[in-house]
Amino acid sequence: MLQARKQREAAIALHKHGKMEMKSTVPLINEYDMSLAYTPGVAEPCKRIAENKDEVYDHTIKGNLVAIVTDGSAVLGLGNIGPEAAMPVMEGKAVLFKQFAGVDAIPLCLETQDVDAIVATIKAVAPTFGGINLEDIAAPRCFEIEQRLQEELNIPVFHDDQHGTAIVVLAALINALKVVDKGLNSARIVINGAGAAGLSIATLLLEAGCSDITLVSLEGIVQENEPWLNQRQKELAAQTNRRHLTGKLDQAIEGADVFIGVSGPRALTGEQVKRMNSDAVVFALANPTPEIYPEEASAAGAAVVGTGRSDFPNQINNVLAFPGIFRGALDARASTITTTMKLAAAKAIANIVGQDLHAGHILPSPFDERIAPAVAKAVADEAKEKVCS
Amino acid sequence: MLQARKQREAAIALHKHGKMEMKSTVPLINEYDMSLAYTPGVAEPCKRIAENKDEVYDHTIKGNLVAIVTDGSAVLGLGNIGPEAAMPVMEGKAVLFKQFAGVDAIPLCLETQDVDAIVATIKAVAPTFGGINLEDIAAPRCFEIEQRLQEELNIPVFHDDQHGTAIVVLAALINALKVVDKGLNSARIVINGAGAAGLSIATLLLEAGCSDITLVSLEGIVQENEPWLNQRQKELAAQTNRRHLTGKLDQAIEGADVFIGVSGPRALTGEQVKRMNSDAVVFALANPTPEIYPEEASAAGAAVVGTGRSDFPNQINNVLAFPGIFRGALDARASTITTTMKLAAAKAIANIVGQDLHAGHILPSPFDERIAPAVAKAVADEAKEKVCS
Repeated sequence: MLQARKQREAAIALHKHGKMEMKSTVPLINEYDMSLAYTPGVAEPCKRIAENKDEVYDHTIKGNLVAIVTDGSAVLGLGNIGPEAAMPVMEGKAVLFKQFAGVDAIPLCLETQDVDAIVATIKAVAPTFGGINLEDIAAPRCFEIEQRLQEELNIPVFHDDQHGTAIVVLAALINALKVVDKGLNSARIVINGAGAAGLSIATLLLEAGCSDITLVSLEGIVQENEPWLNQRQKELAAQTNRRHLTGKLDQAIEGADVFIGVSGPRALTGEQVKRMNSDAVVFALANPTPEIYPEEASAAGAAVVGTGRSDFPNQINNVLAFPGIFRGALDARASTITTTMKLAAAKAIANIVGQDLHAGHILPSPFDERIAPAVAKAVADEAKEKVCS
Repeated sequence: MLQARKQREAAIALHKHGKMEMKSTVPLINEYDMSLAYTPGVAEPCKRIAENKDEVYDHTIKGNLVAIVTDGSAVLGLGNIGPEAAMPVMEGKAVLFKQFAGVDAIPLCLETQDVDAIVATIKAVAPTFGGINLEDIAAPRCFEIEQRLQEELNIPVFHDDQHGTAIVVLAALINALKVVDKGLNSARIVINGAGAAGLSIATLLLEAGCSDITLVSLEGIVQENEPWLNQRQKELAAQTNRRHLTGKLDQAIEGADVFIGVSGPRALTGEQVKRMNSDAVVFALANPTPEIYPEEASAAGAAVVGTGRSDFPNQINNVLAFPGIFRGALDARASTITTTMKLAAAKAIANIVGQDLHAGHILPSPFDERIAPAVAKAVADEAKEKVCS
């Protein structure tokens, strides 16, 4: 408890007046400097962009600038705490963007939680930015907001809580299944939690070739014709649970090769792990208290265990993905982040582990400097592929 | 012409990929750093702000962050060139904010030119910012946008093209009248141009104690009951032109002590200057071609001449005002920028010249490092005055 209090105090000290600043990248010490950076010199890039809008990428920060947009409705595990209280998370994310991939990012914390107003606001500010990172927006409105913006804007829009998580889970799964010598295509996979993250993980795993996925929500196994399904759950009900299981997690877990928890603390018991297939993979991503602690999962027979925490092995952390994804999308001036770009990013993350792969090391450290460049290259290559094909 | 081309080329080279970047102000080299700046440490400032919204000023960049918002409708002398082409100006302004007053500012160039949509967008993003600098928005919608935002937001909203210009003109006028030994209260003042800048100058000069102001638009002298007056012009018609002049600039200029041009190139002739009072003051602010060139105005008898250009003496430049004004307003956490704050800023700028005052030096250089701190202190003192009284 003392340590927890010390950490809180250290965090508050670190956050004094925020974690970021704006810096000039041009000299400004005399009249000549000012005559180039401001009037009258600034008129020249203005005129060129007015003639050819695309030149905004040449003469301004737009091509490297990402807005991290939230409505403060689903912040960390803290819930609907509003735009002001969400600011520290968005600033933290901005700092990670810069540190890991040289992307300039700024928080935009919105006073509204209305879908139409959020979409209108982001569309209005879009000329300023090279990409939009949606963050900590509650389901199901996060789905509609992202979809509408992707359709209406010509810059990439990426809801990191969905896709960043899905990409890193897929990277972790690729390597975990290598460790236990099982195939993506044949593994029985249970995803516990059918919110934004769970649905996005299921969607990406299907695209990656997984064929046996069972999605479990608090109401029970996601299956067709359940009255409580939302639109996204309905779409996935048609593609998952091919063995037509009924019931809850307790039924779904029987004989499963993989458990992916994006649900809540202590949602999985050791007894349930024992009923999984041999060489089980357990990803318990609830934060800060996971679905099951690694020690308990291992004792119950799990061969590979990952969590969302940095103090256990195999941390499944979005920071492995989003900086490189935006770096690649911005470098390629991609207008969207496609499924193939996400799959390429996951494979790139998984590949970095290489020869060092073992049950306690299925993902690289966030501080491995090879990650963002490798992810960026994979994403940019896919973006160019798309342009050329 | 060669020099002009060289300057354009130098400006384009300088603008490559923009003029600013985002920087982290916290260390981020290991897991411990990340555990404070991001999860789990970041949860602590989030929780504190959720409990007390005011703490957003303690734990985030908000209190030092200004949005420079434009709709791209009236950019420099270039007109309605749109949001992308406006970006270089807004970035330039952001760079000046940081350089001169340590204010972190970012461009927000909007895809819309609709008053309601602009107001809604700025209100939506407001939780992120400590202040809003409106920039290069065409009249008359700039008036309504600023007024509505000031009423509806609890952070300062400041349309620099109006108020920044007015403040620096007042500072220049205070010192010019000292040089010619005339009084603000008795001087006959002609303002040529009744757009956003002219109307704002007239308003501030009235507040400063000027009693004899004649506003001249392209249609003629602003006077009550003219059918072509807009709302703001109507309001000023009641307070200006007390001698009930009729006609155009040619009539207004007769016997005037001060000419302030915010109109267009070559709008004032040497003949007209000759018909002004002795020891006339001429501020010819049109850019890049002034209403009259300084040489010609001086030859016609003007005692003090100022322009908007850095290559002539007495440059009347907004950069003398806006960095310090926002610095002061942010430091005092002012919710608006009041008339008394603007007057205090003008006096602070004028005072810096001190003993060095003469006809060729009525304003300090923008690179005089005393300016922003002096303006900030004057503005913050007024803000505190208001809170205490």
